Amino acid sequence: MKKVGVALLGLGTVGGGTYQILTSMKEKIKQTEGVDIDVLYIIDRNKDRAKKFGLDPKMISEDFDAVLKDDRVSIIAEFFGGIEPARTYLLKALKAGKSIVTANKEMFSKHWHELELAAVEGNAGLYFEATSAGGVPIIRALTESMQGNEILSIQGIVNGTTNYILTKMADEGRDYLSVLKEAQDLGYAEADPTADVDGYDSMYKLSILSSLCFKKRVPIDVIYREGISSIEKIDIEYGSRFGYTLKLLAIGKMNNGKIEARVHPSFISNDNPLASVKGSFNAVLINGTNVGDVMLYGRGAGDLPTGSAIVSDIVFCAQQTKHKVMRFGRVNVEEDFEDDFECEYYVRMNVVDKPGVLAKIAATFGKYEVSINSVEQIAAKGAADIVFMIHKTQESAISKAIKEIKSLDIVNKVNSLIRVL
Amino acid sequence: MKKVGVALLGLGTVGGGTYQILTSMKEKIKQTEGVDIDVLYIIDRNKDRAKKFGLDPKMISEDFDAVLKDDRVSIIAEFFGGIEPARTYLLKALKAGKSIVTANKEMFSKHWHELELAAVEGNAGLYFEATSAGGVPIIRALTESMQGNEILSIQGIVNGTTNYILTKMADEGRDYLSVLKEAQDLGYAEADPTADVDGYDSMYKLSILSSLCFKKRVPIDVIYREGISSIEKIDIEYGSRFGYTLKLLAIGKMNNGKIEARVHPSFISNDNPLASVKGSFNAVLINGTNVGDVMLYGRGAGDLPTGSAIVSDIVFCAQQTKHKVMRFGRVNVEEDFEDDFECEYYVRMNVVDKPGVLAKIAATFGKYEVSINSVEQIAAKGAADIVFMIHKTQESAISKAIKEIKSLDIVNKVNSLIRVL
Repeated sequence: MKKVGVALLGLGTVGGGTYQILTSMKEKIKQTEGVDIDVLYIIDRNKDRAKKFGLDPKMISEDFDAVLKDDRVSIIAEFFGGIEPARTYLLKALKAGKSIVTANKEMFSKHWHELELAAVEGNAGLYFEATSAGGVPIIRALTESMQGNEILSIQGIVNGTTNYILTKMADEGRDYLSVLKEAQDLGYAEADPTADVDGYDSMYKLSILSSLCFKKRVPIDVIYREGISSIEKIDIEYGSRFGYTLKLLAIGKMNNGKIEARVHPSFISNDNPLASVKGSFNAVLINGTNVGDVMLYGRGAGDLPTGSAIVSDIVFCAQQTKHKVMRFGRVNVEEDFEDDFECEYYVRMNVVDKPGVLAKIAATFGKYEVSINSVEQIAAKGAADIVFMIHKTQESAISKAIKEIKSLDIVNKVNSLIRVL
Repeated sequence: MKKVGVALLGLGTVGGGTYQILTSMKEKIKQTEGVDIDVLYIIDRNKDRAKKFGLDPKMISEDFDAVLKDDRVSIIAEFFGGIEPARTYLLKALKAGKSIVTANKEMFSKHWHELELAAVEGNAGLYFEATSAGGVPIIRALTESMQGNEILSIQGIVNGTTNYILTKMADEGRDYLSVLKEAQDLGYAEADPTADVDGYDSMYKLSILSSLCFKKRVPIDVIYREGISSIEKIDIEYGSRFGYTLKLLAIGKMNNGKIEARVHPSFISNDNPLASVKGSFNAVLINGTNVGDVMLYGRGAGDLPTGSAIVSDIVFCAQQTKHKVMRFGRVNVEEDFEDDFECEYYVRMNVVDKPGVLAKIAATFGKYEVSINSVEQIAAKGAADIVFMIHKTQESAISKAIKEIKSLDIVNKVNSLIRVL
């Protein structure tokens, strides 16, 4: 029976969930997986956390050097979050020949290349299932099930907070701020919700997932990012009338050898399997050249779902004699990425209610070769809301068209521009 | 670079798809996976199949002994279908130390134990992703991503033919036979559709999947099997009024240490993620103690989706130094399985339209402690359709109640009994 010594860096939510699972599943894992896992060290500044798990506070220390020197430790699982000291500790671990398992999406997306070099140097493994979509086994599927495919696209609902908020806004017809407040009270959103609602969390995850999909590093710098804080309930309602659901999507595509990577609110057809992903659930839909569409769905966060991903990586890692190395080529930011992507659009504006207004706006769209699919005018007193559905066009074209439209005196306000998948 | 010699047994639909992918992806797989795969033998009685792939017909032979003797062949992929000669060839392959990759659900579900023993004897691997739900990577997820969980239940739409038929019946309000005929004309159903529409295909897949879930062999003998050939469009319509979608489900549950395994038409709530799985797509929803619900969705059949699963297994197998052995315990058919399972039910019957009829039927249900949730009566001329929704009760109880109800002179016919998930 292979004995596997593990160190846990952090005993917060995910570290605690991991510790719980390793303890409750120890015998079962020995039986079914043939590995005997022991938690030899827990590194955390807060010894009080031990009490929650019935541990002797002496089990918790701050001595990372002891972990590095101990040959019994072959795997280090990291739950500190943030860039430092996680990055420094993990680089040392890898160079010392110890494999790492992490949930740290920000650190991993920013320092993957460096970590990879250290892993090769130390002949150790990098495992990161828990960085993207919690318990949903998307990373393992991408690395161990898609070998017979080129991946053409990935679309993901990878942030539970924003999906919870958008689901509630739609189901209950409520506005963003009121649902955000409720989400914060219930623990679905942080006191400072920026990382989630402004799309940073989804961006880090897309960087990791799209790199795996396209076998090229997709740094966060090339990812267009737009969050949900400007979403108004009226747009969700109008979209619904047209058969659309609003989601914050992380989208990666390979188009003629160039990679597109973007995070933004998107209307998706109610027929799209992603449309039925509700509340804080996550889902990732990939399209492979031979397998076609494959979607994975599950809980994207929480101590036990994320702990499940960490434990899966620990066991998988323990069973490898040779760890995979991601052979990503060097990227050329100018040549390898497409930022002038194509999309369909939903545009809502408020205009003066008099003859000739629609014609003038349509002409302005036409000037930039932006083609209108449909128009709906919802009259009000002296002003009108107009909703345009725009045919597939380029970002640059619609940006210019909207800029000019905003300057027209007949246009009171361009309220919303939402991309349609 | 590791050179991997492969033999393909069969060059039909799946064999052909596999050959296509191995050819088109050869260089890419060398680059990203570090394995150099060569198809050294193709065994098929029909040399004409070579033409379709631009192959020299001399590449195709019937000499399996040559494959066994050739040390360059480390993996044999089987697409013959049927029990023999697949079983005999694969046992010989395993004992000769060659790993096997198969799509053959019937043979694998019936002979898994024997194949496992041969694999251990030959120190070879058994890979069978393609037996269950085509390109959907459910087997890999169950073996490589769920190590931190006990699996409590599995619910799957694992047969594309029946899901295609039920989706069309619902979307177009048509009857079973007319949709079956259309499915046959379009190639979604076989000329003899029995294996699909009578639930055999789903049963073999459930045997394999539930064994993996519960870490105990679930032989086909203990699986309750009921297909879709008695489904009437009126039941789909009534179910829809109550917010239900009808699917042919493969269900496995672990209940107080006993395993329940059944395949039958089931009404599922429109909120269930499985409800949005349409046409010939498959999906498997598992529930793990720590991760909660995880669902995988994708194409369940076809040359390239299934070929994608085979190629994934070939590559994965080639990278293992030690192949996993499923450590399933011996099963006791009496003690380990529950056949008197509990369910909610939908019952439709046609009765004489006169006073006291409902009371008599309700009393009969009550006699067997079968509790009614709701009743809806749809009157017709002199007779009435009554639809009962029944609270969770045991199979044995409702069987007895229905038997007695059928014998009542006020009951013309008990048309349908459909389980509700």
